[in-house]
Formats: sequence, structure tokens, C-alpha cells
Amino acid sequence: MLCGMQSHDGPLTRLRRSHEELVLDLLRKHGSLSRAELGKHSGLSRTTLYEIIGELVASGAVVASAPDPALRKRGRPVETLTLNPEAGQAIGIDFARRAVHVAAANVAHEIVGSASEAHAADLSWEDRVDLAQRLVGSLTGGALRLGPLNAIGAGVVGPVGDPGGEAAYARGLDGLPGLLHKRFGVPVLLDNNTRLAALAESVWGAAAGDQDVLYLRLSHGVGGGLVVGGSLHRGAYGLSGEFGHITVVPAGARCECGGDGCLETVASVGAVLDAYRAAGGHADDVTALLDALGSGDETAESVLRSAGRQVGLALAAVCNAVGPGVIVIGGELAAAGDALVEPVEEALTAHILPLSRHRVDLRRATLGEVGGALGGIALVLHESPLLARYPAQPDSEEDA
Amino acid sequence: MLCGMQSHDGPLTRLRRSHEELVLDLLRKHGSLSRAELGKHSGLSRTTLYEIIGELVASGAVVASAPDPALRKRGRPVETLTLNPEAGQAIGIDFARRAVHVAAANVAHEIVGSASEAHAADLSWEDRVDLAQRLVGSLTGGALRLGPLNAIGAGVVGPVGDPGGEAAYARGLDGLPGLLHKRFGVPVLLDNNTRLAALAESVWGAAAGDQDVLYLRLSHGVGGGLVVGGSLHRGAYGLSGEFGHITVVPAGARCECGGDGCLETVASVGAVLDAYRAAGGHADDVTALLDALGSGDETAESVLRSAGRQVGLALAAVCNAVGPGVIVIGGELAAAGDALVEPVEEALTAHILPLSRHRVDLRRATLGEVGGALGGIALVLHESPLLARYPAQPDSEEDA
Repeated sequence: MLCGMQSHDGPLTRLRRSHEELVLDLLRKHGSLSRAELGKHSGLSRTTLYEIIGELVASGAVVASAPDPALRKRGRPVETLTLNPEAGQAIGIDFARRAVHVAAANVAHEIVGSASEAHAADLSWEDRVDLAQRLVGSLTGGALRLGPLNAIGAGVVGPVGDPGGEAAYARGLDGLPGLLHKRFGVPVLLDNNTRLAALAESVWGAAAGDQDVLYLRLSHGVGGGLVVGGSLHRGAYGLSGEFGHITVVPAGARCECGGDGCLETVASVGAVLDAYRAAGGHADDVTALLDALGSGDETAESVLRSAGRQVGLALAAVCNAVGPGVIVIGGELAAAGDALVEPVEEALTAHILPLSRHRVDLRRATLGEVGGALGGIALVLHESPLLARYPAQPDSEEDA
Repeated sequence: MLCGMQSHDGPLTRLRRSHEELVLDLLRKHGSLSRAELGKHSGLSRTTLYEIIGELVASGAVVASAPDPALRKRGRPVETLTLNPEAGQAIGIDFARRAVHVAAANVAHEIVGSASEAHAADLSWEDRVDLAQRLVGSLTGGALRLGPLNAIGAGVVGPVGDPGGEAAYARGLDGLPGLLHKRFGVPVLLDNNTRLAALAESVWGAAAGDQDVLYLRLSHGVGGGLVVGGSLHRGAYGLSGEFGHITVVPAGARCECGGDGCLETVASVGAVLDAYRAAGGHADDVTALLDALGSGDETAESVLRSAGRQVGLALAAVCNAVGPGVIVIGGELAAAGDALVEPVEEALTAHILPLSRHRVDLRRATLGEVGGALGGIALVLHESPLLARYPAQPDSEEDA
């Protein structure tokens, strides 16, 4: 769901953008270059190149360095061009159920920092955007300059399908991109926050550098995302990564989605807690359940193992279809460790194509609650026609 | 699995290729252009442009047209450049179990024609390549000129993983790309022929123009392929599209792959014929089964419906994960029509995320046995750094 970026995106605009991208990419690679060097490396005509450089300097993305007298040729100063380290490039915002998380990256694709703040579940979209703006300001100390080359990648709870579609409309999401665009003055990309976490894990997290990644989040809901060839996969209607609604118990319990026996009915936080209580255990939340597990409670281990087996069965079906190199498991239940991950691996091995068995790597997520916001940044760096490339493993303070 | 194409593919080579692609693309779009017009449209410098045009003309991909006297300016002739319609661009070959299918496309991305010939199952790779060469020759009458811009996309039975991997080695596939390269003198792309059929259906077949397509083939084996964002999806190790090995009957019959209760054990041609005979029916092959169905045999209908339900269950899991816009069903069993497709659709509807229900379109394949070879061409047009774009629905004699 792309808003505000394609308004005049004809073939000529795209061609110009690919030229701008080429210039930015050369500066990213070489550090600083003269106009003559840029001309040589890019193969662009002088007219095209000077026009593009002029616009990049005007937008603040590129700065012309004071000429170094030592490099003068025949008395004429040679001005060099570099990326402006203070120019912001991408902001990621995760509008979670009860918190806003933000992260920012500069034009060199380095994460500047991240921040989070909890709020009441019924906070209005206006107020959430206010909060996001305040958090972004705190991150950058006002030094981050947003220009026409910047964009925001925002994550929200639940499916994000067609703009204006029923799902978006029902949750007031229709107005969100406009609200963000008005407040920040830059284009806005919107996606499901769990899918964004999948993308972030493949860029900066447990699967950093891997091109084909399956991310599963076991939380209050069960969902995930697929990274395919290094890009976030959306599907035809933005309804991909719905692993929680794969049928694992035909004629099983009714799911919130309207289906029966979905993975979410046996492997969500609520489902596992219900199963624990039904078996005689006492726990109000995941922390209590994991405490019980830690103190050797066999009932706790048994319900987690049972959920893990169903997770493995569903993942095997997806692996046979999609063939990921890495599976990343995140969410509160992933903290159960081996009690959950071992049965997942056993069921996966039993039901995956034997040829694939030793090729898929199962890992726990590493980015935690800021993953969605980081994914927003990765989305901008991938999707913007200007900013499509990113280093495989940039410096990041989030590699926990 | 790419062979012979990336040998000296550094950043500068890639940059030059993207420039060549730009020039070819402009000629494809505008028909014919002068050097000056190409310079204006491409934004390339005169030096870069003239060098690229020189090489494209030398390779035979582009021809310089005789100047039209009516278009002379101030007495100087203006030469225009066009794509050479006789320059071959891509050949697709499907090495099926008992037949070789070939197809060829010219530089304008038009299908020149296709041809097939059956052979014994134990024919050597040498002899199969001979046969392919003869069929390609018969297609083009020797007029198709293969140059350095051309490539072959070849499909084979079974998984095609890492080059040199165990699967390829066991079936003698390791030598095939070298054999083809030696015989035809052009780069060779190799992939599973069912996956290639998936790509062809998304370019010229039942899902022409759709970007996210799931193709399932119900034949002696059960397999398929995913087209994701318009490109063929391979997965990390080339092991995607293995829909036939999704578990649908836990603890069910042993599958050839070594697993239990795979979709292939209930929905392949052999499995359906076995079920029909076990229920008292008499049929030696699919034709006999479909004849029985046509004459109102309730047992035939019942076994097909039962297979269809399992197919729908497996497809629902994949749809929830991947979110395709179109599902295409091919292979011999697809000819059963409603008896198979109706229960597929019913099970799909019952097990797919309700939000997706009315968004996925179920269709029967249209390309038939030549789909794999056409997919080889589509693979070349997609994968070659030079020839990455193709028109959404080119003229084709294969749209049956």
C-alpha cells in the first residue's frame, strides 16, 4: 500500500529516479566523487548528470564539499560531492496494539536510533501519530532533516490489503497514510507490522543476509511473513504470511477469523494458556507459564510441546511450497526455548520433503519489540525507487 | 541454476548490461529510433551510447535501417535503428520423461513456434540434446540467428537444486548445461519443468498478466510452482513448489519421497487409479477413468472428488501463506473438470482465511504439453540481465 509516491510516476520520472539512484549509489560506494568522476562512473551525459546533482544538492541529500587546495588542477578548484550525513532517509514506525515504536536511518543507510512508548489500547490515530512524531523528534534531536527523498514505513496490526479495502476501512487505516503524510510531509508505505518484523529479521536480525526467510510470530495472534529473494512478499491482495490460519485440526475449535482448527486456535498465547489451565495449571500470563516451565512443571512443558508439534506441521507445509533457507520464530512464546523449538523441529523434519531436511535452518528471532519499526525502514530502503539498495549488514545498535 | 552467463559479471559489466537493456527496451517500445532520439530518451552520454549501439549491431540484435531520403535534414541522411526480427533471443527446451518439447522466441519477444517429439524413457542425454537441436532447426528453418545475446532455458523432471547437488548428480543433470552450451554455444538456464510450466501459464496461459500465481500439476507426480511478483520463485535451495509432498493424511501411505501421507499419495494419477480399482472400478489409464466418469460412473466421480478435497486442503495452507491471486490446475487429472475442480474449490473455501475467499481465482491450465518449453523462454526473458522485460501478452500461437 503505497501512498503519495506514485502521483506523477510516469516512465520518464522512473528513468530519472533510476539515474538519481545510480548517483546516490556511487556516492555511497566511493564516499566522495567529483562531477567528472561521477560522469565517468555513471555513463550519464553531462546535461543529465548536472541536472540530477543540482536537485540532490537542493534537496539536502548530497553536499558539495569545499575544494581541497592540494587537489587543484591548473589553479581551478575541484569540488567533490558526498552524501549528507545529517539528511534523514527513512523512518520506521510500528503502531502496535498498545505501544508506538519508531526507528530512523540516515542517507548512508545507518540506523540512527530507536524509541518506544506504551499507550492505552483505545488511543486515537491522531494521538498515536502525535506520539510517533514526538518519539522521532527525541531520536534525532531535531538534527535529522527530512527532504523530498525521504519516506516513512509504517506497520499496523492485522491484514493490510488493498488501499480502501474492507479490512483497512474497518480499522480506520484508510486515514492513517494521509495523517502521516500531512504530519511528516513525506511519502508513506504501510504494511502489516508482523510482516515488517519478518523483513527486519532478514536484514538486521536472526536471518541477516539470507534471501529466503520464513518468519513466524507466536503471540496473542499467530502470524508471520515471507521474505522472497531478499524482498518482502505481499501476495496478490496483501494477504500473505497468514500462517496462523492454516488448518491443523480439521473440525477443530472455532477461530476468530471464522475458520475451524486454525493454527492460531492451538498455538497462540491465549490458546496455550487455556490448554495449561484446562490441564490443571495456574497462570495468568506468558511470564507465569514460562516461570512454571523453568521450575520443571511438566504440564507447562507438555502444552508447549503439543503447540510446537502443530507449529512444525504447518511450517512443513509452507516449507514444501516455498523452500525458505531460514525459519525465524519470534513472539512471546519463542522465549520458551527448547520446550517449544524442539517439537517444532521434530514435526518439521517428519513432514518436510526429505531432500530439504538438512537445508532449512530454524532460529529464534533477535530484534525484539523494535523489529516492526526497523522493518518499516527496510521497506522504505527496498521499495522506494530512489533508495532500493541497502548494505547487507549495516552498523546497527539493534543487533541484540 | 545459471551456467555460463556470470563468468565476468562485475559491477561495470552489470552497469553496461543495464544500459544495453535500456536501449533494447526503447527500441522495443518505439519501433525505430535515430541515434539522437536514443540519446535523448536514454540520458546516456554520446560515447556510452555509440559504443553500446556498435556492439548491438555487431551482435545482430539491432539493425541500422537505410536512411529514408524524405527524412533527410539539411542533406544529411538520418540512419534509424530497429530490432532485428531474425535475431533469435531465447530457446525453451523441456526434457520431459518420454518427449522433448522446444519453442523459440525472437528479439521482439514473439514466439516463433514450437515442436515436440516422443522418445523412449531410457534415451541418453546426448541423444535428447541431438533431438532438441533437430527440433529447434525445424522450427526456425535455419533462419534464426543465435548470437551472444541469446540463451536457452531448459526444463527437466524432478527437483533442480544447487548445481552439483545430490539431486542433480544422481540424474546426470550435472553434465546437461555443459552439453547444451557446447551444442548451441549460448548460456543455459536450467530449472524444473513443472516450475517452468507455472511461469509460462503466468505469461501466456490461464493466468496471463497475473503477478502472483500458484500452479499445481496433477500428473504421474504432483508438483507445481509459484510465480511471485511476476517472477518464478525458486526458494533458497531450488526446492520450492513441492506441493505434492505436503502432508494431508498424517500417518498415511508411504510416499516415494520417503514421507508419509503426502498429497501425491492420494492425488497423483497412480493414486487415483489405485483408489478407483480398489473400489471395484476397471481402468488402465487416465483416459479410461475419464471415459468412465463421462459415462456417469459414480465410483469414478467419488474417487476424483475425494482427491479434489485433499488437493483443496493443501492448497488452502499454501494460499494462507503465500496469497496468490490465481490458482492454475494442470496435468492429466485436470481434464476431469468439475468432478475434480468443484471439491478443490469447496475445500479451499472451507480452509482459506475468510478475507481471502473471494479473492483467489481457480482456473484450468491452457498451455498443455508445450508449457514447459514456453516457460524456458520466459525464464530467459526474465533472468538474463539483458532481456529482463517482456510484454504482458505477446502474440502467441500457443494460446489454446
